[in-house]
Amino acid sequence: MALEQQRGRFISLEGIDGAGKSTHLTFIRDWLAQHGVDAVFTREPGGTPLGEKIRELLLAVDTEASLDAETLLVFASRQQLLHSVIEPALAAGQWLVSDRFTDSTFAFQGGGRGVPFERIAELEQWVQHGLQPDLTLLFDLPLEVAAERMSKTRQLDRFEQEKADFHVRVREAYLRRAAGQPRFAVLDASRSIAEIQVDIAACLQKLLEAA
Amino acid sequence: MALEQQRGRFISLEGIDGAGKSTHLTFIRDWLAQHGVDAVFTREPGGTPLGEKIRELLLAVDTEASLDAETLLVFASRQQLLHSVIEPALAAGQWLVSDRFTDSTFAFQGGGRGVPFERIAELEQWVQHGLQPDLTLLFDLPLEVAAERMSKTRQLDRFEQEKADFHVRVREAYLRRAAGQPRFAVLDASRSIAEIQVDIAACLQKLLEAA
Repeated sequence: MALEQQRGRFISLEGIDGAGKSTHLTFIRDWLAQHGVDAVFTREPGGTPLGEKIRELLLAVDTEASLDAETLLVFASRQQLLHSVIEPALAAGQWLVSDRFTDSTFAFQGGGRGVPFERIAELEQWVQHGLQPDLTLLFDLPLEVAAERMSKTRQLDRFEQEKADFHVRVREAYLRRAAGQPRFAVLDASRSIAEIQVDIAACLQKLLEAA
Repeated sequence: MALEQQRGRFISLEGIDGAGKSTHLTFIRDWLAQHGVDAVFTREPGGTPLGEKIRELLLAVDTEASLDAETLLVFASRQQLLHSVIEPALAAGQWLVSDRFTDSTFAFQGGGRGVPFERIAELEQWVQHGLQPDLTLLFDLPLEVAAERMSKTRQLDRFEQEKADFHVRVREAYLRRAAGQPRFAVLDASRSIAEIQVDIAACLQKLLEAA
């Protein structure tokens, strides 16, 4: 009997913009390479040719998608990503690291813009059939720190321009979601990069040993 | 107290390609105008700026959307159409005529391509909250007649090129869906245009009197 291919691990990165996801993504990439882990990196929305086109639709200011239509588009992109990237990678034993996944929908469309959590959960079940990341790194940041970081480094995009109370609601939705699920590691992202990366490395090490 | 605006009527046209929907759409437009009915005409997928972009994605052969992603895109387009065209028209007392609606999803993605009916029904409920057309004209045509008509008049598009048994499954799904719901008028579209339009006029007259 042939050895069964061990399934890969699925990691998602979450947090409000300015929380440092991009910096830590590079760290994770290096850490996994150093530990001999074959990993695939992707992002949401997007990550497939269809998904990138959907991402363009979502970012275009002039489309004026209704909130519900926007939510369905996000899940259409996610469905395609699961189908052509995430599931094949995990089945082949690769690790899959995604910059944002479904928790972003709960945080932004749900907490931020008011789509009821239970309606998002219905689409989550429709698309994922119970699949969840094995580890979700939530970079948690007080609003003031995030706003200061963003304005220093780059032009703000549509979502970033929305009001401060929007960010507060997004953060609360993330924390509410994290509270119920052990896959979450909530990292205080107001600390130094070095301190945060000690925590990330510990999470990755634990996942590697569990694999 | 002001008079309440009477809600408009919602009519959908369904059928396999080649069943004559376009011809009869013109007839319906004329009939409603002659009877003083203020009507809005739309189509699916599409009908809004966002919906038309989604339609382009769906028709592009190279996107290779997964079946489930395609189904979610169809409902995203539908949600936007309901939000910005159908609901406002009906609320303003206008009649709304749509070239295809959700029955097409049951027929094409469901019967034709194998998405389970109950999964489509979940999205239908998510998007429509129970809303259905008041009248659905289903132009029913045996496969052989449809194929002959199509090949005479124009280039076949992606869906039209799919195999004959696909059309059989689509037709069966339509008839199965029609069997359970009194809003359907199943019209034998293999008859002459004049004969069919006698039936259409009778359906419209009945709806007008009920309004």
